[in-house]
Amino acid sequence: MKLNTNYSKLEENYLFTEIAVRTKRFVEANPDKPLIKLGIGDVTLPLSPFVADAIIGAFEELKHKETFRGYGPELGYGFARNAVVEYYRRYGVELQMDEITIGDGIGSDIANITDLFEKGANTVLVPDPVYPLYKATSLMDGQKIIYLPCTADNNFLPSPPDCKADMIYLCSPNNPTGATFDYAQLKTWVDYANGCGAVILYDNAYERFIEEDDKPHSIFCIEGARTCAIEFGSLSKTAGFTCVRSGYTIVPMELVSGGISLNKMWQQRQTTKYNGAPYPQQRGVVAALSEAGMADADRNIAEYKKNSRLIIDVLDKKGIFYSGGVNSPYVWFRCPNGMGSWEFFDYLLNELYVVGTPGVGFGDCGENYFRLSTFNTYDATKEAMSRIDAVL
Amino acid sequence: MKLNTNYSKLEENYLFTEIAVRTKRFVEANPDKPLIKLGIGDVTLPLSPFVADAIIGAFEELKHKETFRGYGPELGYGFARNAVVEYYRRYGVELQMDEITIGDGIGSDIANITDLFEKGANTVLVPDPVYPLYKATSLMDGQKIIYLPCTADNNFLPSPPDCKADMIYLCSPNNPTGATFDYAQLKTWVDYANGCGAVILYDNAYERFIEEDDKPHSIFCIEGARTCAIEFGSLSKTAGFTCVRSGYTIVPMELVSGGISLNKMWQQRQTTKYNGAPYPQQRGVVAALSEAGMADADRNIAEYKKNSRLIIDVLDKKGIFYSGGVNSPYVWFRCPNGMGSWEFFDYLLNELYVVGTPGVGFGDCGENYFRLSTFNTYDATKEAMSRIDAVL
Repeated sequence: MKLNTNYSKLEENYLFTEIAVRTKRFVEANPDKPLIKLGIGDVTLPLSPFVADAIIGAFEELKHKETFRGYGPELGYGFARNAVVEYYRRYGVELQMDEITIGDGIGSDIANITDLFEKGANTVLVPDPVYPLYKATSLMDGQKIIYLPCTADNNFLPSPPDCKADMIYLCSPNNPTGATFDYAQLKTWVDYANGCGAVILYDNAYERFIEEDDKPHSIFCIEGARTCAIEFGSLSKTAGFTCVRSGYTIVPMELVSGGISLNKMWQQRQTTKYNGAPYPQQRGVVAALSEAGMADADRNIAEYKKNSRLIIDVLDKKGIFYSGGVNSPYVWFRCPNGMGSWEFFDYLLNELYVVGTPGVGFGDCGENYFRLSTFNTYDATKEAMSRIDAVL
Repeated sequence: MKLNTNYSKLEENYLFTEIAVRTKRFVEANPDKPLIKLGIGDVTLPLSPFVADAIIGAFEELKHKETFRGYGPELGYGFARNAVVEYYRRYGVELQMDEITIGDGIGSDIANITDLFEKGANTVLVPDPVYPLYKATSLMDGQKIIYLPCTADNNFLPSPPDCKADMIYLCSPNNPTGATFDYAQLKTWVDYANGCGAVILYDNAYERFIEEDDKPHSIFCIEGARTCAIEFGSLSKTAGFTCVRSGYTIVPMELVSGGISLNKMWQQRQTTKYNGAPYPQQRGVVAALSEAGMADADRNIAEYKKNSRLIIDVLDKKGIFYSGGVNSPYVWFRCPNGMGSWEFFDYLLNELYVVGTPGVGFGDCGENYFRLSTFNTYDATKEAMSRIDAVL
């Protein structure tokens, strides 16, 4: 057998694995120290009972012969796909049901969409720093990667480069920097992609955290995006679906390259390689995207925003440069006293018993930066920030 | 962007789509005719209440802050992976937890494992006729396909060819033929694969239907399989999980090629491109694989076997050649009077209002054959077979 040798390019120590190893070592050596985790971006508030009961109701149906269901449509039930259509309508975006697929989460879909592209033949733009998935999948496919430096100079929002590209990963609001494109900035990317025949793979996992009116909730709010963009949506951070697993992907009908429809290719991929998201979870998607579900989601997000406030207040007080926290569940800041990312990680862990995420783990340009997540409880976040406040 | 041009090799009309189209056309023209579907292999008996309640209990946990969970381990929770270890122990197979991953179904895993192999560089053996997924994924990857004819002459159980290969798809009990390898036959495949450095991708979705003692319930019952085989397990047909979605994959530690561990590559693939199966579904896996869950599953399978009996009795009476029905939920038989597969499909549909699956849809060697599924109700199956009995 001939194996995919590109796998050997993957880095041995995945960021969160290394954090887990160092944290475990600390806890074993210091079992009595009150550790607080503001590291990994995982929600802590429970599932909306309204949403959970919709899913539970669907499982109750499956217990009875009269209401049992077998295989569902691979691309998603019409009721779930239509719920996404309705959701986008609130943002002024008109989609067709056939442009939407329901999957088991944004991670799978962002990874699996790479199936549509020729291996080892595409030039991929990847922001630096960024969520590690885009780099990893590009490496696995042997693509040529060009990194887009995201620094304080460009407010962590890269502009299109002078060279051409084939595929572009954008994540806005961004993980890890929290930086969020405004309409005009995103328009430059849409124009660039249309100009060079590239596709934008738009990770929209954090859109529900957007507060500012000049920031688009979807790339399809931008004119021209329907000929160059694929958008990935998530319920993980919005509705607490990290262990429930469901998300959706939008491939517009007008996205065509060399006469070939990417919508059709994605449908071929999913109908061949995927058996559809679980029926009960799709009932959950409908509940989560309804007015009642979104009211619950927004209440949870408001809780997390209180944690943002706690973090930002300390950074403001100390005069530490940061971004994020406003339209995003992450706060991204410069390590104090010129410390390196891992140096500051070890300092926080060993001296203050606080776990965060070293910026350099998201890319070389993240060196000297650090990410705190707002997903822990208010009390834990308050305690962590008061420890930091006391010593910095 | 450069697209994966191999997608153009996929056939336009997928078998079950064509069946759906012809059936819909018939129903629209004949809305009063009592149609019976013995076509697609989808279960009809409801989920075991014991299993459903385990899943529902997990969703109840997610409603409360104290018992809420976020992201789970990408490869599956230890409790679910250990349930698979325990399940295999009943068949005399010893596995390590780290050799097992829990996924969202056998289809996804069989498709996604192809990521591990170099595109356009492997020779793949695909039985003919066979479940269409193996051929489709091989086409999408630009692999060289060699078909293994499965005919009455070899009892639909192909032997290894004279030439070398890199990847081998085997499905036993087979979909669509129901033919099932015995220990000695499967050993020849294990020896062949070890001899030429190939990997066997073993689709074990139907093992729970095996009745005969000389048929192995896992390829890992065969000596030498741990150095050449990956096994895919399903709860879809066993425990009625077709719309619940969960399955598992076993990649042995000893499966190494050119010094590279396929277990490690699969773990890299899943930890990068997958966020884990839903937590509640994994509780369902544990319940389904427990003694109580399997007792419920076996009761359902016994129901389906009664339908097998109904089908086989008519075929025996008419002297029609068939395989399957014993260790499998499918009965595969030669179309009467030398009819072609689609010809017999149209005859059954238009004259007897019975929907089955044309054998040729599973590959050229399936021409003149037909598949009936045993997953409908007893009454519906009885009525369908009495119609067939009356006219053949």
